[in-house]
Amino acid sequence: MRVAFLGMGIMGRRMAANLVKAGHEVAVWNRSPGKDVEGARTSANPADAARDTEVVWMCVADTAAVAQVLFGPEGVESVLKPGMIIVDSSTISPSATVKFAEGVRARGGDYVDGPVTGSKVAAESGQLTFMVGASQELIDKLQPLFSAMGKTVFRMGETGKGQAAKISMNLMIALMYEGFAEGLTLATKLGVKPEAFIGLIQNSMVRSGVTDYKAPFVLKHDFTPNFPLRLMHKDIHLMLDAAKEARVKLPALETVEEIYEVATEEGQGDMDYAATIALLEKWAGVEVRGTSAD
Amino acid sequence: MRVAFLGMGIMGRRMAANLVKAGHEVAVWNRSPGKDVEGARTSANPADAARDTEVVWMCVADTAAVAQVLFGPEGVESVLKPGMIIVDSSTISPSATVKFAEGVRARGGDYVDGPVTGSKVAAESGQLTFMVGASQELIDKLQPLFSAMGKTVFRMGETGKGQAAKISMNLMIALMYEGFAEGLTLATKLGVKPEAFIGLIQNSMVRSGVTDYKAPFVLKHDFTPNFPLRLMHKDIHLMLDAAKEARVKLPALETVEEIYEVATEEGQGDMDYAATIALLEKWAGVEVRGTSAD
Repeated sequence: MRVAFLGMGIMGRRMAANLVKAGHEVAVWNRSPGKDVEGARTSANPADAARDTEVVWMCVADTAAVAQVLFGPEGVESVLKPGMIIVDSSTISPSATVKFAEGVRARGGDYVDGPVTGSKVAAESGQLTFMVGASQELIDKLQPLFSAMGKTVFRMGETGKGQAAKISMNLMIALMYEGFAEGLTLATKLGVKPEAFIGLIQNSMVRSGVTDYKAPFVLKHDFTPNFPLRLMHKDIHLMLDAAKEARVKLPALETVEEIYEVATEEGQGDMDYAATIALLEKWAGVEVRGTSAD
Repeated sequence: MRVAFLGMGIMGRRMAANLVKAGHEVAVWNRSPGKDVEGARTSANPADAARDTEVVWMCVADTAAVAQVLFGPEGVESVLKPGMIIVDSSTISPSATVKFAEGVRARGGDYVDGPVTGSKVAAESGQLTFMVGASQELIDKLQPLFSAMGKTVFRMGETGKGQAAKISMNLMIALMYEGFAEGLTLATKLGVKPEAFIGLIQNSMVRSGVTDYKAPFVLKHDFTPNFPLRLMHKDIHLMLDAAKEARVKLPALETVEEIYEVATEEGQGDMDYAATIALLEKWAGVEVRGTSAD
């Protein structure tokens, strides 16, 4: 298929490369230059990339970036033709998604929200999971592209429901990590060795992909960003905004947002979100990871 | 070995039965009568049960109950002999545990805190996990008894560290469930079908033993107690008390405690702790589980 891929971030670039590898004709665009993908045409702007394609796939930073790419100057809108399908793999506002879809449909296009879950390794190896808001018919049309980039497509409902599922799942990640961080900080301050506590929980019902992934880094206090704190903070704001619009009360998430706020003020925004544990440890006077007395 | 087992609750009774089955000579006692265990001698009071035994194993309701059983009228103290080992599988205060251990050691006895994790099914089949605060030497002495009741013994450090690990792990359970409850409530209110959201998360990194166990019941709104809300609430108070003593700040847990407080006021104390989601749903105006529009 002829595909435009807009947004060459950590995920987007790898996803576009997999489309090229699967034999699709790909044009790419990125806000800042120098992010070419071998085998893909590099475009000067979103309209240039999207012109005469069948599918425009986006993976950009936030809701404002999607609005800009679609409806801003030299945006996709200017070359949008009936039958063109716009897919958004960014993580953005579910309600804004519904508005964007209306704008695209008014011009005869179709719209699919399909945010992803999975690390950059999964993006590279084409093992992403898509959470999709669209009709089954549209999903079927896009199946060759989904298959090139991911291993599973979960249909979550109609437009916006992919985004709703994505932010709700990230909510779980934020609270699960907070549970791990508070639990580990308490155990450590009470004199349990961090290694012993982690050995225990990894053999119990509280084990999850979150602790599998984060615990080894936390033990080393290695907060090299995999999922930067500022992006999780952005997602938490998406959740709280969506919750406010829909009048949902999320008490624990509101508290966790305050922790991210403080962490951001303390300059941890570019570290991994796992760095939030360092705040709890500071407040508790837990001095160094892995050296508590037995 | 000659063992007294004090506390014939859901867990204790099954644990004592497994000691009998493994060939140990067991005397049992319970605060309220009528909780006999086949093959074990029923005792009138803790002292009567503990007299001339090698090991006294406790599994009672809370910190006050352990104090009472050990040092109250007709308590274990009155028959405590040098070399006798007291083991506590209740979930109680880590700092009180240290004091109880001092009291026992002052009379020549030994003390082990060994709270358990695992369901009543695990208690019945002898598959519990023990988190133990004691020397390795003491654990080795008790190995035949641990083996009769459990599959794994995790040594968490010296006295009190078993309790510290247990409440820290339960902290994780409370926050992980809250994450599931807030995530599911948000997704549902935003129009994602609960079944679809659960299908997604159970195939993702947020899957855990907590969602494996609770999700099917939550989908049916079946809050028949497995771990009653009032017991999780008691444990949350243990965590917050221990945190206060050790000067640890647990912001998300404090917020979750408020939710349990409201749930208790609304009469949900005897339901499973999973019933806390019903509050979030009520606040959000999510009407009935599993019928949201697509």
